[in-house]
Amino acid sequence: MEHTRIKELLIAENFGKEVIVKGWVRTFRNNQFIAINDGSTLNNIQAVVDFANTDEQLLRRLTTGAAIRVKGELVQSLGKGQRVEIKVTELTILGDSDPEKYPLQPKKHSLEFLREIAHLRFRTGTFNAVFKVRHALAFAVHQFFNERDFVYMHTPIVTGSDAEGAGEMFRVTTIDFDNVPRNEDGTVNYKEDFFGKSTNLTVSGQLEGELAAMAFGNIYTFGPTFRAENSNTTRHLAEFWMIEPEMAFYELEDNMDLAEDLLKYVIGYALQHCPEEIEFLKNRLLEEEKSKPQNERSELNLVEKLQFVLTNDFERVSYTDAVEILKRSKPNQKKQFKYLIEEWGADLQSEHERYLVEKHFKKPVILTDYPREIKSFYMKQNEPDAQGRHTVRAMDILFPGIGEMVGGSQREENLEKLLKRMDEVGIPEEEMDWFLDTRRFGSAPHSGFGVGFERLVLFTTGMTNIRDVIPFPRTPKNAEF
Amino acid sequence: MEHTRIKELLIAENFGKEVIVKGWVRTFRNNQFIAINDGSTLNNIQAVVDFANTDEQLLRRLTTGAAIRVKGELVQSLGKGQRVEIKVTELTILGDSDPEKYPLQPKKHSLEFLREIAHLRFRTGTFNAVFKVRHALAFAVHQFFNERDFVYMHTPIVTGSDAEGAGEMFRVTTIDFDNVPRNEDGTVNYKEDFFGKSTNLTVSGQLEGELAAMAFGNIYTFGPTFRAENSNTTRHLAEFWMIEPEMAFYELEDNMDLAEDLLKYVIGYALQHCPEEIEFLKNRLLEEEKSKPQNERSELNLVEKLQFVLTNDFERVSYTDAVEILKRSKPNQKKQFKYLIEEWGADLQSEHERYLVEKHFKKPVILTDYPREIKSFYMKQNEPDAQGRHTVRAMDILFPGIGEMVGGSQREENLEKLLKRMDEVGIPEEEMDWFLDTRRFGSAPHSGFGVGFERLVLFTTGMTNIRDVIPFPRTPKNAEF
Repeated sequence: MEHTRIKELLIAENFGKEVIVKGWVRTFRNNQFIAINDGSTLNNIQAVVDFANTDEQLLRRLTTGAAIRVKGELVQSLGKGQRVEIKVTELTILGDSDPEKYPLQPKKHSLEFLREIAHLRFRTGTFNAVFKVRHALAFAVHQFFNERDFVYMHTPIVTGSDAEGAGEMFRVTTIDFDNVPRNEDGTVNYKEDFFGKSTNLTVSGQLEGELAAMAFGNIYTFGPTFRAENSNTTRHLAEFWMIEPEMAFYELEDNMDLAEDLLKYVIGYALQHCPEEIEFLKNRLLEEEKSKPQNERSELNLVEKLQFVLTNDFERVSYTDAVEILKRSKPNQKKQFKYLIEEWGADLQSEHERYLVEKHFKKPVILTDYPREIKSFYMKQNEPDAQGRHTVRAMDILFPGIGEMVGGSQREENLEKLLKRMDEVGIPEEEMDWFLDTRRFGSAPHSGFGVGFERLVLFTTGMTNIRDVIPFPRTPKNAEF
Repeated sequence: MEHTRIKELLIAENFGKEVIVKGWVRTFRNNQFIAINDGSTLNNIQAVVDFANTDEQLLRRLTTGAAIRVKGELVQSLGKGQRVEIKVTELTILGDSDPEKYPLQPKKHSLEFLREIAHLRFRTGTFNAVFKVRHALAFAVHQFFNERDFVYMHTPIVTGSDAEGAGEMFRVTTIDFDNVPRNEDGTVNYKEDFFGKSTNLTVSGQLEGELAAMAFGNIYTFGPTFRAENSNTTRHLAEFWMIEPEMAFYELEDNMDLAEDLLKYVIGYALQHCPEEIEFLKNRLLEEEKSKPQNERSELNLVEKLQFVLTNDFERVSYTDAVEILKRSKPNQKKQFKYLIEEWGADLQSEHERYLVEKHFKKPVILTDYPREIKSFYMKQNEPDAQGRHTVRAMDILFPGIGEMVGGSQREENLEKLLKRMDEVGIPEEEMDWFLDTRRFGSAPHSGFGVGFERLVLFTTGMTNIRDVIPFPRTPKNAEF
């Protein structure tokens, strides 16, 4: 490798040394100054061409997006805002970029426009920053769990189990629509399908994660999950990545402690390792909010918001207490909520979660002990309270601007209680036999949670549309590139 | 959290201290000695019960697989093979395990049998070791790339592109087999499908990876990939994980250097961080090979084999030279190969790869510059040689016992050459427009490769069936759990 990456050159001290840079032209001005970016950093390096002694044809090919190789002397820069630049002695065009056709220009494009050219948006400053932060968060997740001796489990993507009911599923099949094998009664004969049964894309690795936790103690998954829901919102994707730790012998308190530690660790890691990217994103957000009325702008800028999460204990409050707070709240009294909170048992909507987090507590909130009826069958059942109300040991972590960042629970380890609940909600026992074995052979208290990775990236980057924090978003009617 | 993990206790020095352990009973003997495992390590801790003063009913419930909580004093052990043990003062059964029904007994089970109870095999020593090594390898992959400033890109799992032709694909759909929407000409109307087009599970993230590399410079993917091939072998899975780095401005030599560095780094990391697990697996393999005739046993044990890879440069040899070696080889001369190598252009089979690696060079081999006709359309084309033979800048890394561990190439960056090749092999240009944009706007030399992660785990653990190194294997007619 003959070239040096720009990230290294920008902090280099060896002035006078000959260096080679390869990258893409961001701008070329005054027939003299090339701003080159190679993706290693948000920042460009300036290369100065001796235009009087350079072929004019060559100079004309220095258009935005062209790939070039530059050889020259690394010198201290006299220009403003940069320490170093390159005095070019040799200039080669590796690949042209026709300025009439290249969709990216050295100007501000809307995020909506860039979403349509998702294969090129990586070349913009905003998306360079977003995906560097995404990388840092992903690495921090692995490092957090590795340091704590959790085992990374690759739970299956294709699953024959569709019993969890966490959402609509995509079918995975090799059956030809024009030649569907049928049973005698006319139903589809899935025995002829690739896996010999009906299979779907996973909605969660939790159940398999529980099996592994009941052997390794502490495990986590970090992989893609899928929902075939027709929701075209700024917070939903059909394909997204999820982190799901599962721990034997953890009760709900331990579970909350781990989740809070994880979020603080990874956000802290991103702040520490991506200071330039987060600074850039902070300014981008400030710029974006200028067009909003004062009362809709954030009170804290991005860096302050991240610091705030790191330095404050998350508020832990039961669903029952939260409902009391909401009932008495101004937007409920003044009927400003779209869904008024009138009684215990109501499912909380985004507006309620945001009120609790952004107005009432003004920090991340962990809501616990939800009504049994609005949560999943596998959650540990509390004893009914004095009024006979049934709750489960669930915990959701709510973040400002995001809503639910984490959903988790202590799991029901008692086989009889679990079977009874499955029966009540209509989950067939025989399909879940493998899962139930964990409660048959050495059952024990255990807990886990799921973090939607894109929501984490959304929060940490200050972006507002979830399609802008995943490289190639999959949404209803959209699977481009 | 009141308990301490066994991994920590086994190296603890605070004798006389009261500790709490939670785990599963491996064995209980002499009505006195409980071997407890909590998954944190291969090794058990011994807890000694004062049976004279313990309820007999309770002792009877100390069966293999039962989950227990033990409180007691940490003391130096007088027993052989252990430093510490626990003098039990309090014993609680958290979850029983009916010995008549529990499928795992404290004896040796066959791997085949354990594959049928994949949800419980994690509780065995072999699979504890295998999945700890798998974890270490996965973490090492991320650490390797993070240290080198590569960006981790999550390329899409659901893809509308089926042009690469790397293998048979699985369809992803929400269309109901009993109600297939049709166009006027009777074909399936995929506009009605969830994504508004025909979609499949990805066979490789490479093409999307190339887009990202042409913006970030160096990126990698690490995610699940899928092949709907009906191969029931010890080396194939329908769902497997792949690592795919892609680097702008890398030529084939740089690509080979990086791949060799990566493999040595991650195998070295596993050796360093999983010494007990690899020792265990080494002995398992020695035991297994005892039943084989002498000439089929490995010359090197597992640790020696891994060390051997770390300390030797991989042999780099062109396809053309390799074919000459194979033509003149004894098994070819004596017609012992199933597929005899008669002329240049032949695709190499596993038997040939193994001959080169295991018999001829006796170390990992990087084969380069394969005939164009047997490789993918996107590989960079060499100038034809003196005999007019066309080759491409491909490189495959072959490992002993495994065959192809890495497949990669320098990519064809020239738009015209690429289009011509796509036309020759019948890949429609319009479907690949987004991909071709990388060659239209600032094209540059770039390279990449793919590592089959399970093959890496297979090699590092010395296991022989790929189904034994992934938590829940997906193969034809099998998607259990």
